[in-house]
Amino acid sequence: MPITPEQQAEIEAQRGERRETLRATAPGMEQHLYTAHEVLDHGFVRVIDYMGDDSAICQAARVSYGKGTKAVSNDAGLIRYLMRHWHSTPFEMCEIKLHVKLPVFVARQWIRHRTANVNEYSARYSILDREFYIPAPDHLNAQSVVNNQGRGNLLQGEEAARVLDILKRDCNQAYDHYEQMISDDGQSGLARELARMNLPMNIYTQWYWKVDLHNLFHFLRLRADSHAQYEIRVYADAICKIVADWVPAAFGAFEDYRMGGAQFSGKGMAVLRRMLKGEQVTQETSGMSAGEWREMMGSLNGS
Amino acid sequence: MPITPEQQAEIEAQRGERRETLRATAPGMEQHLYTAHEVLDHGFVRVIDYMGDDSAICQAARVSYGKGTKAVSNDAGLIRYLMRHWHSTPFEMCEIKLHVKLPVFVARQWIRHRTANVNEYSARYSILDREFYIPAPDHLNAQSVVNNQGRGNLLQGEEAARVLDILKRDCNQAYDHYEQMISDDGQSGLARELARMNLPMNIYTQWYWKVDLHNLFHFLRLRADSHAQYEIRVYADAICKIVADWVPAAFGAFEDYRMGGAQFSGKGMAVLRRMLKGEQVTQETSGMSAGEWREMMGSLNGS
Amino acid sequence: MPITPEQQAEIEAQRGERRETLRATAPGMEQHLYTAHEVLDHGFVRVIDYMGDDSAICQAARVSYGKGTKAVSNDAGLIRYLMRHWHSTPFEMCEIKLHVKLPVFVARQWIRHRTANVNEYSARYSILDREFYIPAPDHLNAQSVVNNQGRGNLLQGEEAARVLDILKRDCNQAYDHYEQMISDDGQSGLARELARMNLPMNIYTQWYWKVDLHNLFHFLRLRADSHAQYEIRVYADAICKIVADWVPAAFGAFEDYRMGGAQFSGKGMAVLRRMLKGEQVTQETSGMSAGEWREMMGSLNGS
Amino acid sequence: MPITPEQQAEIEAQRGERRETLRATAPGMEQHLYTAHEVLDHGFVRVIDYMGDDSAICQAARVSYGKGTKAVSNDAGLIRYLMRHWHSTPFEMCEIKLHVKLPVFVARQWIRHRTANVNEYSARYSILDREFYIPAPDHLNAQSVVNNQGRGNLLQGEEAARVLDILKRDCNQAYDHYEQMISDDGQSGLARELARMNLPMNIYTQWYWKVDLHNLFHFLRLRADSHAQYEIRVYADAICKIVADWVPAAFGAFEDYRMGGAQFSGKGMAVLRRMLKGEQVTQETSGMSAGEWREMMGSLNGS
Repeated sequence: MPITPEQQAEIEAQRGERRETLRATAPGMEQHLYTAHEVLDHGFVRVIDYMGDDSAICQAARVSYGKGTKAVSNDAGLIRYLMRHWHSTPFEMCEIKLHVKLPVFVARQWIRHRTANVNEYSARYSILDREFYIPAPDHLNAQSVVNNQGRGNLLQGEEAARVLDILKRDCNQAYDHYEQMISDDGQSGLARELARMNLPMNIYTQWYWKVDLHNLFHFLRLRADSHAQYEIRVYADAICKIVADWVPAAFGAFEDYRMGGAQFSGKGMAVLRRMLKGEQVTQETSGMSAGEWREMMGSLNGS
Repeated sequence: MPITPEQQAEIEAQRGERRETLRATAPGMEQHLYTAHEVLDHGFVRVIDYMGDDSAICQAARVSYGKGTKAVSNDAGLIRYLMRHWHSTPFEMCEIKLHVKLPVFVARQWIRHRTANVNEYSARYSILDREFYIPAPDHLNAQSVVNNQGRGNLLQGEEAARVLDILKRDCNQAYDHYEQMISDDGQSGLARELARMNLPMNIYTQWYWKVDLHNLFHFLRLRADSHAQYEIRVYADAICKIVADWVPAAFGAFEDYRMGGAQFSGKGMAVLRRMLKGEQVTQETSGMSAGEWREMMGSLNGS
Repeated sequence: MPITPEQQAEIEAQRGERRETLRATAPGMEQHLYTAHEVLDHGFVRVIDYMGDDSAICQAARVSYGKGTKAVSNDAGLIRYLMRHWHSTPFEMCEIKLHVKLPVFVARQWIRHRTANVNEYSARYSILDREFYIPAPDHLNAQSVVNNQGRGNLLQGEEAARVLDILKRDCNQAYDHYEQMISDDGQSGLARELARMNLPMNIYTQWYWKVDLHNLFHFLRLRADSHAQYEIRVYADAICKIVADWVPAAFGAFEDYRMGGAQFSGKGMAVLRRMLKGEQVTQETSGMSAGEWREMMGSLNGS
Repeated sequence: MPITPEQQAEIEAQRGERRETLRATAPGMEQHLYTAHEVLDHGFVRVIDYMGDDSAICQAARVSYGKGTKAVSNDAGLIRYLMRHWHSTPFEMCEIKLHVKLPVFVARQWIRHRTANVNEYSARYSILDREFYIPAPDHLNAQSVVNNQGRGNLLQGEEAARVLDILKRDCNQAYDHYEQMISDDGQSGLARELARMNLPMNIYTQWYWKVDLHNLFHFLRLRADSHAQYEIRVYADAICKIVADWVPAAFGAFEDYRMGGAQFSGKGMAVLRRMLKGEQVTQETSGMSAGEWREMMGSLNGS
């Protein structure tokens, strides 16, 4: 169960209190506040606080560009312009604070995004809970045979069962030993900061994570991408839904320009121009490497 | 006049709109929202938005330390503990967005604080206003004769008058020329991005500046310090008053540990221990340089 | 004259000293060390130090990807792969330190790139030199009539002469007054930190600027772009030449993917697919805004 | 064994190649290049590259302060002045790149220092080695009974043996299962990115870590401190020895002002002044909390 009864009670109490403010509010976001969106088997994402909305992005851009931005008739158009031209600073004027519960191996990928603020649960001070990520059978894949990094087909039958059995038994055994080692019942009890090293990386941790919208979009571009590992992508997907309700115009522009778009190299543009003139170009006549050619054709075919 | 009638009208309209929110609000801060605090002769600081309060700092710390923090009986005590032990991440969980109008030479010092978000008025797109900082007579100082960096006594009589006259005439003449050069009346009109180079550095610019509380405290420690240049210190002082109303416990801890405290080197601590045992220590017997000795004695004398 | 005889002598002394090292060296870069590349009328860029080379990028990538990268046959291919897939961390493993002399209004744009280290000449401590940027006649443009931000045609004849005359006279007069105000000959002498405010923004300053290669490429992408202001673009161009000699494979990939490439939105990709099938698409049938359509057609036409 | 024969051979080949350079070199640091300093049972720290030396710090400071710094007679004095007054930017002009092998639970603490560049070995692409950290008996401590975070006495006799036995068995069993799951011998083989989740956090990983000297000092202040967890402190200690050879003057100032010094709050300074006047101050008459009083007395007693 991702949230304890005590946490749930605290959340409901917080949701019950409405306060007056002069700040900008985003109605779509108020609905998400304190609501825990479940992710994986024990994880969640919930919004703790936010700053700004679509208008705040435009307000900041208009400080910079003054009357020069009047030509763009409306906020959505201005936001699309800013996104297209990589004007990142107005998007930095919005901020979000999330409470996330996630497996340690996902946390290790996530933390590589450095431009964010983090307070993580400390296993030096406190005792971790017995909660581990065990993949659902439809996300238990073999190593890809074409890609050093990706996943291939689903594991089947006995192999799948064997793997799930190992994963379940090992983490529970490790947790039993963790509890035995730190127990001070009839013994001194190992320091928590040492005992934690015995726990596997599918154990859950949690943190507060605060980031501005520009850097959040950068995170989402990489982690909601189809090449991202499934277990972090589901968090990115959950956050995408929240952001779509928070700043709909900015999220729309992000989807169009960053998630749905494509980029081509100078070589690729030369090829594209030849194709548009009706020439049949092949990889051999393109001057591009096999890998780059394959990726470009994939973009053009929309795959 | 720091704020135009149009801006004032917009501010009053914004102040008139109260919205409901589930987010944390800081009552002391709501009063500052949109209110322009005047600084120098044409500058101001006003709060556009904020995230978090004293409780948000503790909430984040308790995510990290879990039950381990229960021993500290209350929020103010926990916040003092965090400040004393340089635990910076909980303070990063609060954020503030300011609209600041300030002279360019002040902006050039301010921008050196890199961990912040900025949208500045662009003189490539837009035309700057005829507003220049002219020091008041009681802030028109001579170069210090003891310090390569500081200010000495006030300029007097004719010299003061001569300086003020130069400052006033030069900026107005430069602005007249700026207007002449960009005018397209009977001529092409110089590009704004070029014409601006003729303007002196006491012209006012403005920006939106967004920063987390930890980095804001770092800024205030350096810029509200008595060694900071007066013209940036008055901005830091204005912000200090705002922060004191926003997060009173955190600001109290900051004042005590960062602004009002002192630090000593290993050498200094050895000297201090000798003094506490009743020994008369002099610079000669201290092993410290003249400069370091003078600074340490200053700290001990509370000067 | 951008460099004083004393500075030139110091540079020649430094160039004369060869030292042995076990570190990676980049032969193309050693030739640039301490050589001042002149930019604008009094500015320069010179390399003070560097860390890493093309191999260092691959070495770092191979720590991450281990044996998985063996498939990519050589360093240049691996570097192209990293650039195409926005793998930025290996490029962060190279670092460069530059000494730059530049007008203040250029420095104000430059400093907006926050992920870098800077030590700037302090006009609080020291006296600025009488050196101002005056545009050459072939870079003295009118405001663009189609673009709020850009430059239009060159100023001609009398207007050009009038502008140049204003720029030259105003900065010299301001500098005369700066000297008069700080002089302690027969008066107290205004503090330097105050007197500097009278100087126009075409005065030269200088700094040490240290940045990693990933962030340098980001800077160059924005500042060597044709939309960047000419006066910062010439610095970016000078740095491009240096980087091409330092890390030729990485610079080649950067040129192809970042400078010479193009990106299209999801909408743009849909249009492109229709065009490749032979359909005649117009702005009206594209679903794109006029601005976005114009930019996309520009990319496809190679303009 | 922390380094494989292949790695050792590569290191020796690199050490054998001497190159000429015009860059600043630090003779004390050249000796460390490529030498692996062993840390814990399988870890190491080795210097891959560096930029700058003590002189580079002063060179950058003198760009900022110009002739104003001549008063400080020598480099060591200037560096002490910069450190005492928290002038951080000159220290940022030095950079170091390390190759570190370390247990995952140490890596998770380390990575919280965000202002650094990292390339970590990827367990998505590559297979981790069977190397785990097992504490030596003289670092196998009980949980502290006075501090929620720290370690208490050493575990004794049977309890120590039991803990070591658990740690050794569990990691080997987990690794056996890791190998079984990823094996494609007679089965599909689980994707590496999934199989890694079964491994405990005392497994070793490795990375390249690049950081400037200012941020490295910040890391060392926190991690070479007596309150840091032993397993990261030994890495910090190893790096301290390297830095002492690289920039001896800067490291000396760091030791004196940051590691060996102490700071007091405003309240603490008031108490100190009373004590220096001969007054007997107790916690009750100090106005300080019990915790703060205890820490201050600890500083004054040099404990």
